[in-house]
Amino acid sequence: MADIATRVHNHKWKIDPIVRSLIDTDFYKLLMCQSVFRNKPETTVTFSLINRTKSIRLAELVDEGELREQLDHIRTLRLSRGESTFLRGNTFYGKRQMFRHDFMEWFEGMQLPPYHLEKRDGQYELTFEGKWHEVMLWEIPALAVLMELRSRAVLEKMGRFEIQVLYARAMTKLWEKIERLKKIERLKIADFGTRRRHSFLWQDWCVQAMQEGLEDAFTGTSNCLIAMRREVEAIGTNAHELPMVYSALADSDAELAQAPYQVLADWHEEHDGNLRIILPDTYGTEGFLQRAPDWLSTWTGIRIDSGDPAKGAETAIEWWKSRGEDPRRKLVIFSDGLDVEKIEELHRQFFGRVKVSFGWGTMLTNDFRGLVQDDALAPFSLVCKAIAANGRPTVKLSDNPNKAMGPASEIERYKRVFGVGAQKPVEVLV
Amino acid sequence: MADIATRVHNHKWKIDPIVRSLIDTDFYKLLMCQSVFRNKPETTVTFSLINRTKSIRLAELVDEGELREQLDHIRTLRLSRGESTFLRGNTFYGKRQMFRHDFMEWFEGMQLPPYHLEKRDGQYELTFEGKWHEVMLWEIPALAVLMELRSRAVLEKMGRFEIQVLYARAMTKLWEKIERLKKIERLKIADFGTRRRHSFLWQDWCVQAMQEGLEDAFTGTSNCLIAMRREVEAIGTNAHELPMVYSALADSDAELAQAPYQVLADWHEEHDGNLRIILPDTYGTEGFLQRAPDWLSTWTGIRIDSGDPAKGAETAIEWWKSRGEDPRRKLVIFSDGLDVEKIEELHRQFFGRVKVSFGWGTMLTNDFRGLVQDDALAPFSLVCKAIAANGRPTVKLSDNPNKAMGPASEIERYKRVFGVGAQKPVEVLV
Repeated sequence: MADIATRVHNHKWKIDPIVRSLIDTDFYKLLMCQSVFRNKPETTVTFSLINRTKSIRLAELVDEGELREQLDHIRTLRLSRGESTFLRGNTFYGKRQMFRHDFMEWFEGMQLPPYHLEKRDGQYELTFEGKWHEVMLWEIPALAVLMELRSRAVLEKMGRFEIQVLYARAMTKLWEKIERLKKIERLKIADFGTRRRHSFLWQDWCVQAMQEGLEDAFTGTSNCLIAMRREVEAIGTNAHELPMVYSALADSDAELAQAPYQVLADWHEEHDGNLRIILPDTYGTEGFLQRAPDWLSTWTGIRIDSGDPAKGAETAIEWWKSRGEDPRRKLVIFSDGLDVEKIEELHRQFFGRVKVSFGWGTMLTNDFRGLVQDDALAPFSLVCKAIAANGRPTVKLSDNPNKAMGPASEIERYKRVFGVGAQKPVEVLV
Repeated sequence: MADIATRVHNHKWKIDPIVRSLIDTDFYKLLMCQSVFRNKPETTVTFSLINRTKSIRLAELVDEGELREQLDHIRTLRLSRGESTFLRGNTFYGKRQMFRHDFMEWFEGMQLPPYHLEKRDGQYELTFEGKWHEVMLWEIPALAVLMELRSRAVLEKMGRFEIQVLYARAMTKLWEKIERLKKIERLKIADFGTRRRHSFLWQDWCVQAMQEGLEDAFTGTSNCLIAMRREVEAIGTNAHELPMVYSALADSDAELAQAPYQVLADWHEEHDGNLRIILPDTYGTEGFLQRAPDWLSTWTGIRIDSGDPAKGAETAIEWWKSRGEDPRRKLVIFSDGLDVEKIEELHRQFFGRVKVSFGWGTMLTNDFRGLVQDDALAPFSLVCKAIAANGRPTVKLSDNPNKAMGPASEIERYKRVFGVGAQKPVEVLV
């Protein structure tokens, strides 16, 4: 007996939508959105897609019509009743009513603003302009759509069993990673792979495989929809867009120097416990920590997202010590360019010295390297960033010059203001 | 939308039946059954399960109650209308109405006879006694049930994703074999893996993967049900049980010496073309061919099922030449202990010299070696053979003394009658 109703229902879709829910996004986007909604409701921001892997000519791989259909479909989405109930009623990070009533009322009526799409030099120029708290919600679905349309373009040319074997290989590959991770004592690891996932269904499978394979060592997923459906913790705190936009809004060098701390002051007021995680690398980790106000050293931990992760963690440990804090009570979350070997190495080096945790992204949800001809499914470095705020360009320096963003003159100014010297470039794979 | 009806329907099963159709069997069983039904309808035969791999203690792995339930379920099966229509209406080996009306009438009403089951020394003693054309139909389902119950016993202890990854690995493994086979020019290969398959669903998957991966190089399956459902050729000719039973019925040494030829004389009358395939090894290939009547050299080909396959094929080539036949017009079917490497090697050695074809069995449908702890899913050598006919023991010598069967005194007698000298033992894995 085939399920005729399901088949008929599926026939009604004009497209096979990639993003089917407004909460199929990173949980921290919602946390930051609420913060922006409260603190910077009038700020106008432009987000832009940036493909750092120029060799992947996305506009030649992905059909423009299909891309528009997917983006248009996302604009038809509204928060569903069940999703709203979950956000209102669920306990996040041990706290009830994480999302306030005024924010939820706005979110329930929210439609994503229009997008601008053009082709240039084999790439898509995809930008979103509008109120910060609205356009910021485009980032994750826009990335997920492009990643998955690229996967589909490659899969389209394959036979049914060839496809099944491809997934068989990918499953085997992930399971072998999980079997290695299993052996790490008292590991704590979460899925951070929404934005550059191979596909939604694949991410959902990866999360379930981690649940079964790692049990308590798997702490949750950054994907809010999957967290709801699979009943695991939704994970995430804050991202570079906060200091980047706050900094762009600064009217003087003195204000600029204070902007990244202002972000965390606003956050401090709103959140406690495991949500108080410092992201220090936007304009150089060392200078940021040196000049940080004392209250910041009382925060729960730090997230290391660029540069040499071991060096970043050592810097944080020294800093805590210099402020009279016990590093063994502090949380270090590694979230940049992780794969099993790196996780094993970092865990070996830091377990016991600090509380260690991992946010595993692209190599969890999109490691299709070596599985098809010409490596056509290998992940690549696609980002979607705030490039301007109230008409001024944003800047990111990070601890890796290959991840820097912004106009050259502004980068120089920021380097001067934040006292960033020579940086060691690290290749950006994903 | 879940398919509620399917779920509810499945709840009605008391067990999950392994064999669900009387034609979930090797096609040649039906061909032989018709021949026996016509030529030896009054012969009483005993079939018995023999586990050649003593280290696998089947009675400790497989629950007796479950085994009885599965065997009892098989006794409830009757040929369905659609199955009967297929057997009556389909073209097999280019011939319509392969199965005669009187045989089909009998088959439509047939119920498998009772079985006898006992445990001894950690093994099951499972025997079937009755009219030859009835009990012979137990062989394949009995083997398939035991193989699959053993698989289930191992899988029972595994988690859901662990199981999925196990199949992912098995799929990957098979696909890699298919990719190697693809490179062999003008390969002809069929599935012969019903009796020692990992499970029914797995065999069905293997056949479909071979269809997509090998296209025309995949010539069909020995499984009649899968051939019907997947619309591929049903493949198979005749087996050792015919000369074994005919020989046991012989009243003198002179009759015994002629018995294997009498089998083929009956077959010759009934079949032509690609169904005229000699299986020469029951009592030693060399002697069999030397003493063969001339009409046998006009047959289409030969099946090499024991001993060193290259040596067997060379013997056949020499024999054809000695009888004035052109080996290049003859078909050699290799069907013993094949895996990709052996197939590549034999194809290299014989392609162009004869028409080469392969009947790939256990390593197609049950290669789970190395995929679970303690290799608990590795295939093993289980057979179900005619051990007696009209109260007399049967004998098989084969070209490998490790495959010999029968009482020692009878083996000596057969060796004398058929002039079989020293034989080289070859390890029997499956």
